[in-house]
Amino acid sequence: MKNIAILGSTGSIGTQTLDIVDGSNGELNVVALSAGRNIELLEEQTRKYRPYLICVETKEDAEELGIRLNDTDVRIVYGMEGLTDVASFPKSDMLVTAIVGMVGLKPTIAAIKSKKTICLANKETLVTAGHIIMPLAKEYGVDILPVDSEHSAVFQCLQGENREDVEKIILTASGGPFRGKTLEELKNVTLAQALKHPNWSMGKKITIDSATMVNKGLEVIEAKWLFGMDSDKIEVVVHPQSIIHSMVEFKDGGIKAQLGIPDMRLPIQYAITYPDRLPIKNSERLSFKECSRLDFEEPDMEVFKGLKLAFKALENGGNSSVMYNAANEYLVSMFLREKISFLDIPKYIEFAMNEGTFTENPNVDEILETEAEVKRILESEICR
Amino acid sequence: MKNIAILGSTGSIGTQTLDIVDGSNGELNVVALSAGRNIELLEEQTRKYRPYLICVETKEDAEELGIRLNDTDVRIVYGMEGLTDVASFPKSDMLVTAIVGMVGLKPTIAAIKSKKTICLANKETLVTAGHIIMPLAKEYGVDILPVDSEHSAVFQCLQGENREDVEKIILTASGGPFRGKTLEELKNVTLAQALKHPNWSMGKKITIDSATMVNKGLEVIEAKWLFGMDSDKIEVVVHPQSIIHSMVEFKDGGIKAQLGIPDMRLPIQYAITYPDRLPIKNSERLSFKECSRLDFEEPDMEVFKGLKLAFKALENGGNSSVMYNAANEYLVSMFLREKISFLDIPKYIEFAMNEGTFTENPNVDEILETEAEVKRILESEICR
Repeated sequence: MKNIAILGSTGSIGTQTLDIVDGSNGELNVVALSAGRNIELLEEQTRKYRPYLICVETKEDAEELGIRLNDTDVRIVYGMEGLTDVASFPKSDMLVTAIVGMVGLKPTIAAIKSKKTICLANKETLVTAGHIIMPLAKEYGVDILPVDSEHSAVFQCLQGENREDVEKIILTASGGPFRGKTLEELKNVTLAQALKHPNWSMGKKITIDSATMVNKGLEVIEAKWLFGMDSDKIEVVVHPQSIIHSMVEFKDGGIKAQLGIPDMRLPIQYAITYPDRLPIKNSERLSFKECSRLDFEEPDMEVFKGLKLAFKALENGGNSSVMYNAANEYLVSMFLREKISFLDIPKYIEFAMNEGTFTENPNVDEILETEAEVKRILESEICR
Repeated sequence: MKNIAILGSTGSIGTQTLDIVDGSNGELNVVALSAGRNIELLEEQTRKYRPYLICVETKEDAEELGIRLNDTDVRIVYGMEGLTDVASFPKSDMLVTAIVGMVGLKPTIAAIKSKKTICLANKETLVTAGHIIMPLAKEYGVDILPVDSEHSAVFQCLQGENREDVEKIILTASGGPFRGKTLEELKNVTLAQALKHPNWSMGKKITIDSATMVNKGLEVIEAKWLFGMDSDKIEVVVHPQSIIHSMVEFKDGGIKAQLGIPDMRLPIQYAITYPDRLPIKNSERLSFKECSRLDFEEPDMEVFKGLKLAFKALENGGNSSVMYNAANEYLVSMFLREKISFLDIPKYIEFAMNEGTFTENPNVDEILETEAEVKRILESEICR
């Protein structure tokens, strides 16, 4: 039996992780959970999975939950300290970081230092601090197992292969709802249009990131750290059907791909049960009768400048990826509140990357300082 | 350094195997070769690779070669005994069985008993005697490494996976030059038309087998033995571009595929250098810019009855696959001599499978007897 803790248990990845727990015939046991503001669902999850420890964002919610759950003996914590307690909870073997945003960074570091296996769904952790996380995981002998479907596909394709035989990683991208559109056509895109992803049902932030292709940019940066590949060895191919989840090219010219009907439960489960595979309840199987055609095209990096800027951030090095990610986090939240336009997202990411203070090898405090600086820069620029 | 022997060194797979030797920077050393009747090329190969032992089909050719090569100290043998000497040559570590037809059976058994790693390109060996070969290889601790691009793809996809997690093998088929044709349209197909394969450049026999889809049938039977899969776990999908070489579906619903520009040197080299991969000289890389679309369709087993009959042979069991293969070998040779029509091939395969004497668990002699019987049956039926 594996004891797992989940950061972000009420989100899309979090709830699907709990589906996997449900289907595990008791092989997986939930010992700690964290959520943001959705205390109704966290209460429900606590009654069902009986964790020892739960965490919410605010003190008020923690107190409210304390009243609601006073018939149980669950311990309730809150804030960053609470998140860190969940991440490093002594009874857990494995942490699923399904939380969104840079808030996942410190708890993940705490989990690694407590020797928890990390199932990583929080891409900001590696995007902003891959240069800290990967050596730390190595030092503590901790596996970082990708949950993202693309990185899971790459990870699956690497099984049984020598890392030195890898020539290139090919990340597939659906292209999002605006694939094939011109810059002119993207000018007046609405929030509702941007929230309609063609293939995957995901949280709002990642759905917007998918529409701007910043999501793919973040994945490129994440892949660099996860698989130790230089950015010129990482390629993005637009594949609208999202059937091939990603590929690896080897030095003999052979390519391996992982494919299937889009279903996040597969990569989540693969990370949790790795190296074993288990059946997934009601999983839809790929039928080549129905799926009779797969298409591929090059991404248009002029229209989807958010992707191009990720490669630029990797080229710049230092804290450039932090600026890229922090700017995007802030700008997506502004777009979700309909304060800025769709094309403002890449425009102001670039602005922030140009205006932010460059730091060569940022530590955690400097990463967080970069994040704060980027927000200040953007706030004053946008609200002028 | 690996010492290799090659059965069928002057054929398509044989010469490409020697290309791999050329590119190996001295890591591969040729110690024994066999050819059929192409003694010019075998002479050339002998002068270049300096094997200790070579074998030809007839005594006359052996004598002729002896005169031509009397300035060297190569030993020259011939016939089935000679093939067996090459296969079990003491100085070799590995045998590449690139010979075509059931003639490969006895030498392969000899090689296994001499503990040579087998790079298997001769599909008739497993098709007719998989029930003998696989247990024998296990007994002698010998690896049977597939060279066929489809089986190599499956083998590559299985690396790092648990065999018990495999749910299905999906063999891709180009569909050959007659994909999409009706039975009516196939009635008057010429030899020249059948010899035009859309994607692969191969020997004549296998090119015809590809046009009838008997080749895929043989591969289905071979896959059953190589990977220990029941025939209901082996699926054939027509994929005209021949980019995806085959796939494996796992019990979590995930699929792995191996893909690339068709180039037989990759699977040949992978078998020889397994589990390592090496660069291949002038290998063409897959570009998703050029290869922007992959199609899939179900095979039409009424038009390509040769494929359906393979599943029937597996269902019948015993020596049915021997009848299937022996009938096809004879019928293709007749078609190549323009003695029978294209559609006569599946028609008479079925006839032979109905008329041949069934044997439950045939030994090698019974396999060869079945082959002889099938030829007698077909000769008398066709030449009536």
